[in-house]
Amino acid sequence: MKVTRIGVINIGDELLLGQVIDSNSARIGQFLAPLGLSVHRKWCVGDDANEIKYALCEASETSEIILITGGLGPTRDDVTKKVLAEYFGVGLVFSEENYSHLKNLLEPRNVPIREVHRQQCYMPANATLLENKMGTAMGMWMENGGKIYVAMPGVPYEMDYIMTHGVLPGLIAKSYSSNMYHQTIHVGGMGETEIAAIIEPLLDPLPEYISLAYLPALGTVRVRLTGNHENADLLKNQIDEYIGQMVISLGEKVFAAGDSSLEKAIGTLLMEKGLSIGTAESCTGGNIAHKITSIPGSSVYFKGGIVSYTNSVKNSLLHVSAHTLEFHGAVSEETVREMVVGCCTALGVDLAVAVSGIAGPDGGTDELPVGSIFIAAGNSDKIFTRKLKLGKDRSRNIETASIYALLLAREWILSPK
Amino acid sequence: MKVTRIGVINIGDELLLGQVIDSNSARIGQFLAPLGLSVHRKWCVGDDANEIKYALCEASETSEIILITGGLGPTRDDVTKKVLAEYFGVGLVFSEENYSHLKNLLEPRNVPIREVHRQQCYMPANATLLENKMGTAMGMWMENGGKIYVAMPGVPYEMDYIMTHGVLPGLIAKSYSSNMYHQTIHVGGMGETEIAAIIEPLLDPLPEYISLAYLPALGTVRVRLTGNHENADLLKNQIDEYIGQMVISLGEKVFAAGDSSLEKAIGTLLMEKGLSIGTAESCTGGNIAHKITSIPGSSVYFKGGIVSYTNSVKNSLLHVSAHTLEFHGAVSEETVREMVVGCCTALGVDLAVAVSGIAGPDGGTDELPVGSIFIAAGNSDKIFTRKLKLGKDRSRNIETASIYALLLAREWILSPK
Repeated sequence: MKVTRIGVINIGDELLLGQVIDSNSARIGQFLAPLGLSVHRKWCVGDDANEIKYALCEASETSEIILITGGLGPTRDDVTKKVLAEYFGVGLVFSEENYSHLKNLLEPRNVPIREVHRQQCYMPANATLLENKMGTAMGMWMENGGKIYVAMPGVPYEMDYIMTHGVLPGLIAKSYSSNMYHQTIHVGGMGETEIAAIIEPLLDPLPEYISLAYLPALGTVRVRLTGNHENADLLKNQIDEYIGQMVISLGEKVFAAGDSSLEKAIGTLLMEKGLSIGTAESCTGGNIAHKITSIPGSSVYFKGGIVSYTNSVKNSLLHVSAHTLEFHGAVSEETVREMVVGCCTALGVDLAVAVSGIAGPDGGTDELPVGSIFIAAGNSDKIFTRKLKLGKDRSRNIETASIYALLLAREWILSPK
Repeated sequence: MKVTRIGVINIGDELLLGQVIDSNSARIGQFLAPLGLSVHRKWCVGDDANEIKYALCEASETSEIILITGGLGPTRDDVTKKVLAEYFGVGLVFSEENYSHLKNLLEPRNVPIREVHRQQCYMPANATLLENKMGTAMGMWMENGGKIYVAMPGVPYEMDYIMTHGVLPGLIAKSYSSNMYHQTIHVGGMGETEIAAIIEPLLDPLPEYISLAYLPALGTVRVRLTGNHENADLLKNQIDEYIGQMVISLGEKVFAAGDSSLEKAIGTLLMEKGLSIGTAESCTGGNIAHKITSIPGSSVYFKGGIVSYTNSVKNSLLHVSAHTLEFHGAVSEETVREMVVGCCTALGVDLAVAVSGIAGPDGGTDELPVGSIFIAAGNSDKIFTRKLKLGKDRSRNIETASIYALLLAREWILSPK
């Protein structure tokens, strides 16, 4: 089966200026993966007719399917539709379908229909509209010269809706798919090179149709095998076999597989063991609780959290003793130990995660420079602690400490009683 | 002065597959803005020699400066350096400089130097190395045919370091800059179209060298004017004047300007008024506390937060009465009111923000469908509350409710006593 080439075009000055991070094209990749399809190239250009034309020409040269995001809103920076109509040599026509969609969406919210809204309903004459329940701009499916072009608004949840309800069913109906297969494992607490030293001997020689990639993030690395082969069963068996060997060699450092995450893996583990968890956070400021509760259904095992930014809250709500705060300091192993115990009592949970440190960029001392962070996990019976020496970047320190604290909680849950 | 065209190339299969969101190219845009430079086009291709060559050729065709991220790591998916050497018609040479950098970085951490590390030290012969204190792969500055090429690793904080300490000083030394100027305002609680109806009459007619863009996010919209004109003073005056008119017309809906954020604006406001704040969160799960504490120096006004995911924690730590929880329910105006009052008492703060609702995707009832969220801000003297009716997407609901809760706190702080 031939490989379908998919090009993605992201349009928007804000993307070039860096005022908006392009998360759309990553999500397009995620949406296509279950169909065995993947993106071949991406172009990003500004809200300018010539630039959009350039990207259209380039994408049409090498891709059979061209997915375009951005430039469909009601306001004056949007030129995409005009360029598309010109490119296809068709006119713009007023779409009653989009107009009534827009009215149905805005009238219940008492938003007056304005001229800009009417303008938004002009579409290239060859476009079939794709439903968008999340916003006023519908998606457009266009075919030209044997290729498929889809234009979607740049607002992420609107694009998600159109991809899910319009684009994927459309591609499936046209039998686009390929024998691509990939598998990912998530590894915590090891660097890329350390992982490579363990797994690469297992993969030697790797068939040329399978490729290996490392995707490092703060505190974790995802390791991915991707393959493309006409014999889908062979490919799947081979990749699954390699992944199995990697998991055996890396042991408990592998905390999840596939599209999972550390938060999700810990949630599953807590449910399996019937344990409840709480958080006691100083410098991570609620980020650990936020991560845990980002998982649907987390209320089964997460009872609550206390963000104790001041010593007085550490004392009053988490019962860290005044003596400890005075003699060991708020940033100390003793304090995080008492935070764990106090949190278990205050929230009535089986185990707690605690963090206290200096996130930065200021506030360090010679003894405790910025980036010194203590983490702890456990309960009054058994507590694991660790001291992290991180850098000077506040947001990076918050994120890294949160990840390491969750990894430590996982270690505690997996440890023998 | 002529405009400098800057092309950005992002390399990595993980970007095409969507396993990693490309935040690097947005940050490149942000780094270049203070120099009056902006990105002209971006290309994203996989870890494949032919693909990288394609992007290099395309970028060289239209850009004077080409910034490349990704593909410099130690592991086997990285081909960028070979392709660069071939493209420039030079060889790869072993760099003692990078090797000793790598040794200095790894030896104190007791990481053994492996063959993959040595491999990483081969560089195109025309490369000048750029320091990278954050990781093993140094940046490379190469000049060819009157154009500048810079290759940086894809790990965000490593790229940040090289941009800040190598690329920007290098571009300044070569006198690259342009008369681009832009200004942004942040508007809360109004949609794009509503804002457009107010501000566009003020901007009519907008000179052709100034462009207007709307950057909508959940609950907020950034409005940006960007211009490019040889008379820098004229341009700045004009844009500042337009922005001033917009701020007057939109009034208190404008909560920040420039590179600020809602969290930062509220922090500044709290410091000006000498007020302290705390959070009482149910369905937002710590996200509001996390947002507030993402700002350096927030410990001046933020004392702490309580994430009360269960009724028992709402009762024991926030003193929401059993009667209220039973008769009005945890998701009710009465509950968030009591959460505000209880939070002020428990944390000893001047005002509190409280949220309780059904984030979804499950757990709704006919009366309170998924997306029903109550928010409140204030203290026992005066409380503002609002009921939100959001959608079914959990992460979107958490984020939107957090933003609206912070906007409500801002409204409370600005309201007359």
